[in-house]
Amino acid sequence: MRILILGGDGYLGWPTAMYFSARGHDVHIIDNYVRRKMHAEAGTESLVPIASDLRTRVSAWREVTGGTITAAEGDLCDWSVVEHAFRQFRPETVIHYGEVPSAPYSMMDRHRAVFTQYNNVINTLNVLWAMHDFAPDAHLVKLGTMGEYGTPNIDIEEGWIEITHNGRSDRMLYPKMPASLYHCSKVHDSTNIEFCTRAWGLRATDLNQGVVYGIETEETRLDPRLATRFDYDDVHGTALNRFCVQAVVGHPLTPYGKGGQTRGYLNILDTLRCVELSTLNPAAPGEFRVFNQFTEQFSINELAELVQRVGKECGLDVAIRPVENPRVEKEEHYYNAQHTKLRELGLEPHLLSETLVEHMFGKITRLRDRVMTDCILPGTTWREGRLEKRPANATAGV
Amino acid sequence: MRILILGGDGYLGWPTAMYFSARGHDVHIIDNYVRRKMHAEAGTESLVPIASDLRTRVSAWREVTGGTITAAEGDLCDWSVVEHAFRQFRPETVIHYGEVPSAPYSMMDRHRAVFTQYNNVINTLNVLWAMHDFAPDAHLVKLGTMGEYGTPNIDIEEGWIEITHNGRSDRMLYPKMPASLYHCSKVHDSTNIEFCTRAWGLRATDLNQGVVYGIETEETRLDPRLATRFDYDDVHGTALNRFCVQAVVGHPLTPYGKGGQTRGYLNILDTLRCVELSTLNPAAPGEFRVFNQFTEQFSINELAELVQRVGKECGLDVAIRPVENPRVEKEEHYYNAQHTKLRELGLEPHLLSETLVEHMFGKITRLRDRVMTDCILPGTTWREGRLEKRPANATAGV
Repeated sequence: MRILILGGDGYLGWPTAMYFSARGHDVHIIDNYVRRKMHAEAGTESLVPIASDLRTRVSAWREVTGGTITAAEGDLCDWSVVEHAFRQFRPETVIHYGEVPSAPYSMMDRHRAVFTQYNNVINTLNVLWAMHDFAPDAHLVKLGTMGEYGTPNIDIEEGWIEITHNGRSDRMLYPKMPASLYHCSKVHDSTNIEFCTRAWGLRATDLNQGVVYGIETEETRLDPRLATRFDYDDVHGTALNRFCVQAVVGHPLTPYGKGGQTRGYLNILDTLRCVELSTLNPAAPGEFRVFNQFTEQFSINELAELVQRVGKECGLDVAIRPVENPRVEKEEHYYNAQHTKLRELGLEPHLLSETLVEHMFGKITRLRDRVMTDCILPGTTWREGRLEKRPANATAGV
Repeated sequence: MRILILGGDGYLGWPTAMYFSARGHDVHIIDNYVRRKMHAEAGTESLVPIASDLRTRVSAWREVTGGTITAAEGDLCDWSVVEHAFRQFRPETVIHYGEVPSAPYSMMDRHRAVFTQYNNVINTLNVLWAMHDFAPDAHLVKLGTMGEYGTPNIDIEEGWIEITHNGRSDRMLYPKMPASLYHCSKVHDSTNIEFCTRAWGLRATDLNQGVVYGIETEETRLDPRLATRFDYDDVHGTALNRFCVQAVVGHPLTPYGKGGQTRGYLNILDTLRCVELSTLNPAAPGEFRVFNQFTEQFSINELAELVQRVGKECGLDVAIRPVENPRVEKEEHYYNAQHTKLRELGLEPHLLSETLVEHMFGKITRLRDRVMTDCILPGTTWREGRLEKRPANATAGV
């Protein structure tokens, strides 16, 4: 199958590209390196060293496996980039990871909030128009986030909910209460995509993904040049990855506030499988299909305690020291999100285990000298924006 | 009260500015003339002649009434424009009409779809950040549209709905199924605004307005230079206004498809009063308040029959000839939208009457020579975009 991977240089995009190439698909990547540029601006970088660009990555892939992945640097907000890719590559599936992915970044200041929404909304609109014009039968597999839903006091369904009200019923889009201006941009995308399936008959699967953890996949292990990035800083890192780094370097784990914030989580291996299952079982024409893509729910405190427990077994002295919550969010709340549809398609989850945490410790320990401890604590609050203690262009860790 | 009116050169914005000025408020307008530019591009114009710019309008207002309205030309997507206005004028209320308002325009082609969403989403984000930075206690009165809701099979509530699901309950945002990429942009705005009330404690009222009809207000009548625009073309005209023009010029009325499409409608006089009631009774800090701003529901066929009936009484021979529906929408559906909250604040509706239609006939008849009949029929379809029969830069009616 011809698979276009937007954002194919990222934490998930690059492993996805290799995964599909290894399974015989024809893969083309577009990426504008925005994540690398955001790191360069902040003076941070991936803990795991990664190849310097896509050219190096795809060359290494060919050398190691004989497989061909093609790649182009390009900004999806530039219509000529999108048009060219659709005309030349004629994708059958479009997997869209190509968005600015950080909640704290979107709350730093006006400029970054606008950039996040501009980039995400406009590039997805371009993709939708390209499908309308050049690939009306292609299937869009779009990465959204569980953070679109917020933390309602009722069960979270997969995108749609049957509502009975005043004696009448309808199947409605599940109401969203996004958690940051970044999460809002994903809700905007979902709104636009649903409309385009309805108006134009496009096929789309919206993957509301949980928080991903893990460092390696079958393909990244083949060669150091095939490694994927691993972020632990306050802007791009996610909870479990960050806790593991803190444990290894002897920094107390830092839950935000009371730590009762509960979310869905999944292993990076399951991300790849979920995207594959969505691709191999496409939405019907005109269908806006939503999957909640995670395998288990944890509170922040549960994750911190897991990391502390495994740390103890490994001889690490791990403290837990909550910090004031930089976000505006509920710290104790009901949370029960459905996630059966991908299981029904065949997903067999890799559940979070002490063994996995121990394995992450091992990998991080070997890279310990690269850890910049001063970029881990929150540098942005939802109410005040970027905090003064960490100026815009400071080169952290240097 | 210091009232900043964004989009104060428009069909509703200009009458709103005069209305508040006449009632003793301190009014400042910002507008980038985007509506005038869209008309110039299409070769269309307002049926009612309007003053050439805001400078002429505010001069005439001062001459006729002695009142002072200040105005600046500026693009709200340009942060320096927004920042300057907030710092200098220090608004207590921000009334935001300043958006690209056309569903067909947003469906013409990719460029115009992107422009609509870029303009509307980014300028509203700028306004929200300006409130966060400079006017955290100000009240945002934002014009949305009933078209955000679509046509669900259950009653439409005012922005929020109590949902009971699997034995638990929560007050949720009412699910939206917008009717065009323009309507999607208004949903995006609502999502962003709700988030900013929650994260930053801003005050906001989202007015989901129905279709507005009417030509004159108390203030526009004072002098021809104070008139507001009246659009009847396929891009900017709305159903009742367009039907009245068709009746006067002897063109058959053109319902789209079966004509069972039902929407909320209101008189322009009620728009002014609703915005005033919202302004004088502001939302609380942190409150995202939603009002459905319309007074009556009609199907398209009911409006066509009303215009035909009044036409007969006035000696006009009015035919009704449905055209193929250019939109993707249900043509027969349940529709029952709540609209009690503005009534509770004191709104006394001007209901649609035969007298009003007759009055519109009179006004249109006096301007009959200005009607461009070739810009009335739909020139854009939801599935195909702009139709070939009407090239981009044709100067209609010349």
